[in-house]
Amino acid sequence: MRLAELSRRSGVPTATIKYYLREGLLPPGRQVNTTTAEYDEEHLRRLRLVRAMIQVGRVPVATVREVLGHVDDDSLGGAMHLGAALWALPQVPEPDEEDEYVRAAHQEVAALLDRLGWENAKQLTSISPAYRSLVVGVAAFRRLGYDWGAEQLAPYADLMHRTAVLDLDNMEAYPSEAEQVEFAILGAILNEPVLKALHRLAQEEESTRRYGFG
Amino acid sequence: MRLAELSRRSGVPTATIKYYLREGLLPPGRQVNTTTAEYDEEHLRRLRLVRAMIQVGRVPVATVREVLGHVDDDSLGGAMHLGAALWALPQVPEPDEEDEYVRAAHQEVAALLDRLGWENAKQLTSISPAYRSLVVGVAAFRRLGYDWGAEQLAPYADLMHRTAVLDLDNMEAYPSEAEQVEFAILGAILNEPVLKALHRLAQEEESTRRYGFG
Repeated sequence: MRLAELSRRSGVPTATIKYYLREGLLPPGRQVNTTTAEYDEEHLRRLRLVRAMIQVGRVPVATVREVLGHVDDDSLGGAMHLGAALWALPQVPEPDEEDEYVRAAHQEVAALLDRLGWENAKQLTSISPAYRSLVVGVAAFRRLGYDWGAEQLAPYADLMHRTAVLDLDNMEAYPSEAEQVEFAILGAILNEPVLKALHRLAQEEESTRRYGFG
Repeated sequence: MRLAELSRRSGVPTATIKYYLREGLLPPGRQVNTTTAEYDEEHLRRLRLVRAMIQVGRVPVATVREVLGHVDDDSLGGAMHLGAALWALPQVPEPDEEDEYVRAAHQEVAALLDRLGWENAKQLTSISPAYRSLVVGVAAFRRLGYDWGAEQLAPYADLMHRTAVLDLDNMEAYPSEAEQVEFAILGAILNEPVLKALHRLAQEEESTRRYGFG
């Protein structure tokens, strides 16, 4: 397809597509003559991914470039290919390891992973941003005097594991590994706000069931 | 307790507590003489709530004041007391009702609520920020060409409903309605990042189980 059709099908203005091409976020089309290039379905997919990261996820351009570098890098296999791409997305600040609540939170999260039998996650604690976010979140509860530890977290972790099983089942419905990694990034950008909204709506449904409209 | 002890037990500096008192975010203590006031457990609880909203949730002071106004307002009963306080927290921008993807998303979310039998949530669609966030999120998927509708969302909604049941069970463990509403706000501020982190960690656990470390 030509640039105009790529723009029409993606809903992204041609000037923006040209900007993405200049910035190297989108690979160049196949040049058919000096003024015209031809784009394919892979360009459309990549364009949607870039658009989601920049416009919905507000991911900085340099970070988008880094994430895409991991998507296109086949040197890592299996879960690490996925991990490298997702971990390049913006993350929460590092926990302050000198803080007493952070230290207590590390212990609670370690106890949680033992209790859940998440043997793989235990091996990722030194490199996983998700692990660090969890420690920061648990430390915030403890700093406010709330006893929020392995016991309280375990039933939530179980539900989040079932959510992750759904995510990966949906991802595996895509035929190629490239599409699967792209879908995982879109999920991290687009599906997290959807889950948060579903969670709040479910709280409203459940609280009106229990307490009425008031 | 005196101001110094309130500061020690909450971990909030005395200068910050004085600022919250001046801003009316914390009710004044009981004046024991011209220079000394006495604070109780209720001050400590309120202080923790204010601190969580401002420091962890980055909620603006004027919004904190509005949320607390709803917490302290007993004119609304049942789920609406909870709803008014939670709905005063910062929310996503309104959906653009002229947008074709937003219109399609409204239909998909309506189909989802029918399918789930969330009869109460259906009555809240015109006022609930969670409903609007969900429409915005579903529209973002559709704009990128992803067929993300009632069928894909239903299993996620079911898991989020189970999460909400846990939230309300935890909330009901607190004896008074005031404490319950406060805990619900803390949950919205502190537990959402914890759930997001648990979700990502569960994805890492599940993907390494399926695909290995690579």
